[in-house]
Amino acid sequence: MTGVKRPNDKHLMLFSGRAYPELAGEVAELMGVEIVPTRALNYANSEIYVRFEESVRGSDAFVIQSHAAPVNEWVMEQLIMVDALKRASAKRITVVAPFYPYARQDKKHAGREPISARLIADLFKTAGANRLMSVDLHAAQIQGFFDGPVDHLWALPVLADYVVDKYDTSEMTVVSPDAGRVRLADMWSDRLNTRLAIIHKRRDPNVANTVAVHEVVGDVRGRVCLLVDDMIDTAGTICQAAEALVARGAKKVIAAATHPVLSGPAIERLSASAFEEVIVTNTLPIPPERRFDRLTVLSIGPLIARAIHEVFEDGSVTSLFNGQS
Amino acid sequence: MTGVKRPNDKHLMLFSGRAYPELAGEVAELMGVEIVPTRALNYANSEIYVRFEESVRGSDAFVIQSHAAPVNEWVMEQLIMVDALKRASAKRITVVAPFYPYARQDKKHAGREPISARLIADLFKTAGANRLMSVDLHAAQIQGFFDGPVDHLWALPVLADYVVDKYDTSEMTVVSPDAGRVRLADMWSDRLNTRLAIIHKRRDPNVANTVAVHEVVGDVRGRVCLLVDDMIDTAGTICQAAEALVARGAKKVIAAATHPVLSGPAIERLSASAFEEVIVTNTLPIPPERRFDRLTVLSIGPLIARAIHEVFEDGSVTSLFNGQS
Amino acid sequence: MTGVKRPNDKHLMLFSGRAYPELAGEVAELMGVEIVPTRALNYANSEIYVRFEESVRGSDAFVIQSHAAPVNEWVMEQLIMVDALKRASAKRITVVAPFYPYARQDKKHAGREPISARLIADLFKTAGANRLMSVDLHAAQIQGFFDGPVDHLWALPVLADYVVDKYDTSEMTVVSPDAGRVRLADMWSDRLNTRLAIIHKRRDPNVANTVAVHEVVGDVRGRVCLLVDDMIDTAGTICQAAEALVARGAKKVIAAATHPVLSGPAIERLSASAFEEVIVTNTLPIPPERRFDRLTVLSIGPLIARAIHEVFEDGSVTSLFNGQS
Amino acid sequence: MTGVKRPNDKHLMLFSGRAYPELAGEVAELMGVEIVPTRALNYANSEIYVRFEESVRGSDAFVIQSHAAPVNEWVMEQLIMVDALKRASAKRITVVAPFYPYARQDKKHAGREPISARLIADLFKTAGANRLMSVDLHAAQIQGFFDGPVDHLWALPVLADYVVDKYDTSEMTVVSPDAGRVRLADMWSDRLNTRLAIIHKRRDPNVANTVAVHEVVGDVRGRVCLLVDDMIDTAGTICQAAEALVARGAKKVIAAATHPVLSGPAIERLSASAFEEVIVTNTLPIPPERRFDRLTVLSIGPLIARAIHEVFEDGSVTSLFNGQS
Amino acid sequence: MTGVKRPNDKHLMLFSGRAYPELAGEVAELMGVEIVPTRALNYANSEIYVRFEESVRGSDAFVIQSHAAPVNEWVMEQLIMVDALKRASAKRITVVAPFYPYARQDKKHAGREPISARLIADLFKTAGANRLMSVDLHAAQIQGFFDGPVDHLWALPVLADYVVDKYDTSEMTVVSPDAGRVRLADMWSDRLNTRLAIIHKRRDPNVANTVAVHEVVGDVRGRVCLLVDDMIDTAGTICQAAEALVARGAKKVIAAATHPVLSGPAIERLSASAFEEVIVTNTLPIPPERRFDRLTVLSIGPLIARAIHEVFEDGSVTSLFNGQS
Amino acid sequence: MTGVKRPNDKHLMLFSGRAYPELAGEVAELMGVEIVPTRALNYANSEIYVRFEESVRGSDAFVIQSHAAPVNEWVMEQLIMVDALKRASAKRITVVAPFYPYARQDKKHAGREPISARLIADLFKTAGANRLMSVDLHAAQIQGFFDGPVDHLWALPVLADYVVDKYDTSEMTVVSPDAGRVRLADMWSDRLNTRLAIIHKRRDPNVANTVAVHEVVGDVRGRVCLLVDDMIDTAGTICQAAEALVARGAKKVIAAATHPVLSGPAIERLSASAFEEVIVTNTLPIPPERRFDRLTVLSIGPLIARAIHEVFEDGSVTSLFNGQS
Repeated sequence: MTGVKRPNDKHLMLFSGRAYPELAGEVAELMGVEIVPTRALNYANSEIYVRFEESVRGSDAFVIQSHAAPVNEWVMEQLIMVDALKRASAKRITVVAPFYPYARQDKKHAGREPISARLIADLFKTAGANRLMSVDLHAAQIQGFFDGPVDHLWALPVLADYVVDKYDTSEMTVVSPDAGRVRLADMWSDRLNTRLAIIHKRRDPNVANTVAVHEVVGDVRGRVCLLVDDMIDTAGTICQAAEALVARGAKKVIAAATHPVLSGPAIERLSASAFEEVIVTNTLPIPPERRFDRLTVLSIGPLIARAIHEVFEDGSVTSLFNGQS
Repeated sequence: MTGVKRPNDKHLMLFSGRAYPELAGEVAELMGVEIVPTRALNYANSEIYVRFEESVRGSDAFVIQSHAAPVNEWVMEQLIMVDALKRASAKRITVVAPFYPYARQDKKHAGREPISARLIADLFKTAGANRLMSVDLHAAQIQGFFDGPVDHLWALPVLADYVVDKYDTSEMTVVSPDAGRVRLADMWSDRLNTRLAIIHKRRDPNVANTVAVHEVVGDVRGRVCLLVDDMIDTAGTICQAAEALVARGAKKVIAAATHPVLSGPAIERLSASAFEEVIVTNTLPIPPERRFDRLTVLSIGPLIARAIHEVFEDGSVTSLFNGQS
Repeated sequence: MTGVKRPNDKHLMLFSGRAYPELAGEVAELMGVEIVPTRALNYANSEIYVRFEESVRGSDAFVIQSHAAPVNEWVMEQLIMVDALKRASAKRITVVAPFYPYARQDKKHAGREPISARLIADLFKTAGANRLMSVDLHAAQIQGFFDGPVDHLWALPVLADYVVDKYDTSEMTVVSPDAGRVRLADMWSDRLNTRLAIIHKRRDPNVANTVAVHEVVGDVRGRVCLLVDDMIDTAGTICQAAEALVARGAKKVIAAATHPVLSGPAIERLSASAFEEVIVTNTLPIPPERRFDRLTVLSIGPLIARAIHEVFEDGSVTSLFNGQS
Repeated sequence: MTGVKRPNDKHLMLFSGRAYPELAGEVAELMGVEIVPTRALNYANSEIYVRFEESVRGSDAFVIQSHAAPVNEWVMEQLIMVDALKRASAKRITVVAPFYPYARQDKKHAGREPISARLIADLFKTAGANRLMSVDLHAAQIQGFFDGPVDHLWALPVLADYVVDKYDTSEMTVVSPDAGRVRLADMWSDRLNTRLAIIHKRRDPNVANTVAVHEVVGDVRGRVCLLVDDMIDTAGTICQAAEALVARGAKKVIAAATHPVLSGPAIERLSASAFEEVIVTNTLPIPPERRFDRLTVLSIGPLIARAIHEVFEDGSVTSLFNGQS
Repeated sequence: MTGVKRPNDKHLMLFSGRAYPELAGEVAELMGVEIVPTRALNYANSEIYVRFEESVRGSDAFVIQSHAAPVNEWVMEQLIMVDALKRASAKRITVVAPFYPYARQDKKHAGREPISARLIADLFKTAGANRLMSVDLHAAQIQGFFDGPVDHLWALPVLADYVVDKYDTSEMTVVSPDAGRVRLADMWSDRLNTRLAIIHKRRDPNVANTVAVHEVVGDVRGRVCLLVDDMIDTAGTICQAAEALVARGAKKVIAAATHPVLSGPAIERLSASAFEEVIVTNTLPIPPERRFDRLTVLSIGPLIARAIHEVFEDGSVTSLFNGQS
Repeated sequence: MTGVKRPNDKHLMLFSGRAYPELAGEVAELMGVEIVPTRALNYANSEIYVRFEESVRGSDAFVIQSHAAPVNEWVMEQLIMVDALKRASAKRITVVAPFYPYARQDKKHAGREPISARLIADLFKTAGANRLMSVDLHAAQIQGFFDGPVDHLWALPVLADYVVDKYDTSEMTVVSPDAGRVRLADMWSDRLNTRLAIIHKRRDPNVANTVAVHEVVGDVRGRVCLLVDDMIDTAGTICQAAEALVARGAKKVIAAATHPVLSGPAIERLSASAFEEVIVTNTLPIPPERRFDRLTVLSIGPLIARAIHEVFEDGSVTSLFNGQS
């Protein structure tokens, strides 16, 4: 037969954007590899330049970026990295976005709005991404926005293990801060085997149509209340929820959320709140000036490292979560 | 200048699949046009054949199909109709699917599942559809599955106007049959200015981990309870909810839902239930043998006719819903 | 060098739709593997649900489905399976469709018709199929409908070997049942080294323009006539052909065709016909109630198994047919 | 409302490649327009340069090219013209290819062959073509190779009207020159209401397996035999057929074919043949040195002009052929 | 005939991003229309939200954005605006980017670099843009990066008319600041009918290989030197060029460039330079604090307004430049 | 686990078009493999037929073609070869085009022109090419025309090594034949450490506006002048440049260029010119009748062989050029 034959190795390579190199570094260390040396900078006019400093030809490339503010900057950097990998003959490119950017614009809430979360998926595809990996998508439907495989990781086990170790769940009630998060709270209460309560924000039907009340539904008096959400952004909702719980006689209030967006007045609000502890992961970087005493940050690094390992070795990612996706 | 110039008319044409020609006929009548005569049949081996019996060249084509059982049959028929329109030089093709097929498979609930709702959007696109129109998508994110404009219509005004005309809303409580529909119930309670209650199905935290209880959250005793949902399929959830409401002292129980899937044991369950009235629209056909006394069917035809009119005339569809989408 | 290297295995996995699991099972057994356990069912409203029960990541996946009636059901099931494989990170997906659905709608016979055979190819591509494998396409041009490799298998050797073993070909004439199948009959006569005849259905030029006659062209008197076709659907054409041959003095009439569609009145007609034997393969399932004494079914399984083996091992499929495609 | 509104005219423009400007000129004259002035040339190294000499913005552009030898040259020129139109903001681009290039490579006859006819369709699409128009495709399935509308014109009426005017069809037999053209002969015999015969080239079953005989099937003695085909390329088959017919006692032999490829030894063969007349259309140019006394060339121009008119005016092309496509 | 016919108006609508609304406003005023009211803002976490406040259905939409720093922010905003227009059924979407972002990364200067200028073109296409309009692309080849029409405008006439009005060109020499801009200088010298000189930066061949010298090629002593470039970014090159010209005895030095990027030390350098006047257009905004006495800003607004007018009216954009593109 | 696992070899195969099999043969010999036996021919009507004579399934295919005149012929042949490889299940297809066809039409020089270089990239992609390899693209931006990896090779080292071996560079000046090639001359002067000069063709500013003069900029008197360009087509520019250099007192004139297009009057001009030596590579074939005494042809074969080796072995192509691309 004509030609030459060679055994065909596969070659894992990890890449990191500049948004949060510490997380990528942790993943790399856990996997026993090094981040591929990369030259990345902004020119004076703010355009981004990227170059990889060793050959990436034929690699199974994982490009890790954390989409903190300024989010458009980091999205564009990751797109440019993917383009450079595609043009440098990487074999397969997986975008790792622990916090999916624009996840909340996942539908038109009003006419003539964009669906930015779909746009983001298409931009990654266009740049050359073959796969996506993300943690706790705001809506699981976002998996369907990408035309290809999406590895959807769950931080719940990481957060829940910590809670179980530290608190007595027999006196705990899991609380959803609004109607939209009841399903998440449900999963928590299933896992911790606790009671459930809901905070429902709505107009008071008995009064004329302007006043919003925070109705607490369920049994919270004397209980350790665990408020759960997928992210804490400006912390308005969750802090109002905490107040309502305290007002209803909660013994203690704690919060657990995957993504520490913590933007605008978040730190001020959380610092002034009744929370005994606020537990998050590091899917997004938290600069020192935005940390405070009662904030606990658990690392998402081990989960991402294991998921990348499974993807590279053709193992099962869903096996990390007992088959759920 | 070289060439010939002509005024460029636009030309609306309506097409109907065989699943529910009565609805398309109603839309056509309301718009003062006729359905384009179409030859459609199944060959002996079950393959579908379609041919339009007049020229469709240059038309602004709207293809109406209702995705009742056998749903795969009707999806394929609509795909074939769209293909035929594309190849016959229709200018623009809008798929009108009042009940979006496979809407509930809008994410991977477990590993190695399809996301069939995205697949359906891609199939329509591939066949040649430029636009989609649908009523009350199971998740609004499905809009983002289609790479193009989606006109998302809401049946709530149709259903609510009927309820307001017939019932005294001052003694009414809107009830969500489970945690996943609370947002819909919220919109209803906003519109009707009523109280809200929730049925929460979960394990009893006080008992060992197997028993599911239907907890009613909110004030229902002596109230007219309106259970709302986007669809009634086998009617299991909603009938259990009705029972729980009655057990808690509800004065009367009625149900309102957009899509009358009514499959399997639905009719039997609803007939045996405590519902005083079950109100649905005709986004899906309800054959005579699946109708029963207490079932009220409101027509979705006028809404679809108005929406097609706005699309054709470059008006605003969201204006039909005060700007919401 | 940065990163981790591993040998890159390839991993064959076989999947089966629900249309005809026996054929897939036979292929699997011949290859010494097992069909991947798959959960597939129809919900009450007729929508299909599919889930694979083990990891398929990185696999070279072959999805076998037989497109018997209800054909739209089985097409949609296969599309959903392919979508699930794509989203579960299968490396390469080959659709195995022994009987290509909608093959006869391979062109517009009249204006404003679809070209459903092309649509089917595009649907498979959109769902995520990389390759197609099929047996005896109605028109070989259908290979060109798919944008990727198509392995086109021929059942002729399977059927012809049987005929040669059982019948004396020296007294045989191969007969084409109509003008459109002459090329197929030609291949048979080449292989069996027999005479050829043709049945030509047309208006009688001597009589006014309405009567269709079955003109037998060629020498059939006293011969064993072998009618050949790619499929037997309602069996109308082939049974009329058999009558015409008997009327012209044929000694014996047998039929050989690849695809046993056998729909509508086929069984009734064939049972009442003069055929001594009707030989088909099992590219489509034949339920017991549609079998009859003179029907011989040869298995296509060994051919499919060998072809999948060649594809997986980067061998040559055309080598199975002496270089023809 | 914001913005400016204007009536939206449509604007037909005709373009011609350099292969056969006379045909395009005839079409233009019949339509009362002029071919858009175009600068087209080959550079010294054989690359093609094209520029349109007036604005084509917003036009409904029809690009006429005849794919005579050197066919690759003319394909590339047409692709370049389409690219220039796309980049110059033409609104819709229709490729008019009276003789579809590479039509005979419409399937893999053997392993590892291209399907060049599909490739050609994809190349036109990629360059920017929205639609195709062609005459008498070698296989009607080629319509399905293009992802968009194809206007398939038939020269049969043009040719047949001429034959009917000039010959007495009561003594005529339509003859297919080989097994592959029987369907075309069938359409002719339907239209002319004549008898049918077939020439079948195959091994002689009575002699060992090497000799090919031209068997004449049907009644030709004393008849005026009309051999029909879609094209005459090297004229080998059709001239051998004529010989066989004469040998069987045909009174007169004439030929009718749409596409005068007439390459290689065609003229020599036809000149030496028994044909009383060879009737073709001018879908391809016939240079003076390749014309001969008994060759009759009918213009396809009027048919193309009418079809372009129908396309531009959103009329019906199939109406030109009584609904057939 | 079935259906409804209406005259088909076309409807121009102008949209503006937030980078430089003054330019869009000027264009709108010149065209006698208003910018479509748009709600655009950044959420606390820096994600962008956009909504159009009136119906855009069926519009011919032009989306004007100036890609000043922070450029990634404005690129993303424009992508999101295009996505919103696509989903709101705009008929045609033209991206107007007077300064094309990432234009200088138009090729790989080294291995494993991206080609960001192509990426940008693909991102706009993916979001839904049908057309691009830009001024003085850094390399004209960027036109070929976009799969669709690109209207490439030239600021040279705007700048040159000003220069001719104000300066005596008989004593002027056009100077290229480096080897890469000689072609631009050539066009200037053709238009102004002046002499040409070149500044060539290279190693001194007589000295060992590290020193870069600014060699002035051509006659500059006693002349008014006009340095021309497509953009002034950090102004390093052009200020060094000015110094070299003065050192060689230039009588006066002025600069003309289309795009006032003016980033980093640009203002400081230009203020300290020998330039008598620096002439630019306003393709990019220049905030008051970055303006200085000798800076002249000519508006590009009239050119863009005329180009949009031509595009909308199906006129000729190249006619604005005597046929050049 | 279900299924079968096998080690996954990779398999290099080389293919050659008919334009210049000697170059492909040299590459194959250097790599120790054989060109895959291929049947390629033109039918009588000039259509191309291609078939590979052994299985190519799973191969890493490199298709080498030289785009000499007739260039459209060779482009089409290569497209057809790529289509055949795609349909025969090659795993990865790299188009090797040492001289990129239509490279000079890389932008619109005037309105309503094509961008043929982009079209060519799209045609290769559509046919099935995954990658491109080329030598000295006329504009490096052409890399960005292809949506995938492009390996851009440089002939400069090959040419420069020869020059350094044969000539004394201390008395050499590198000369750019026009303003557009200054950057190339710059690279040469950097590598050879020589002086630089430029020939600038323009109107004489002192005379009325018609006369073009060849101004020599830089020090050439008594020097060995090396004129450099990417290609020599009709040799007009370079021969006029040589004359101007001689007129200015150059001691000796030699030329070096990568691509020997040598079309039209090139040989006549070069033979009559003052060049002592004209050095080119064999990216294009030079038939014996177009060779002349002072023409030196260096082989590009070793460079291509090394680049293919690096691509196949997942090495680094840019490492062949010290990281430049």
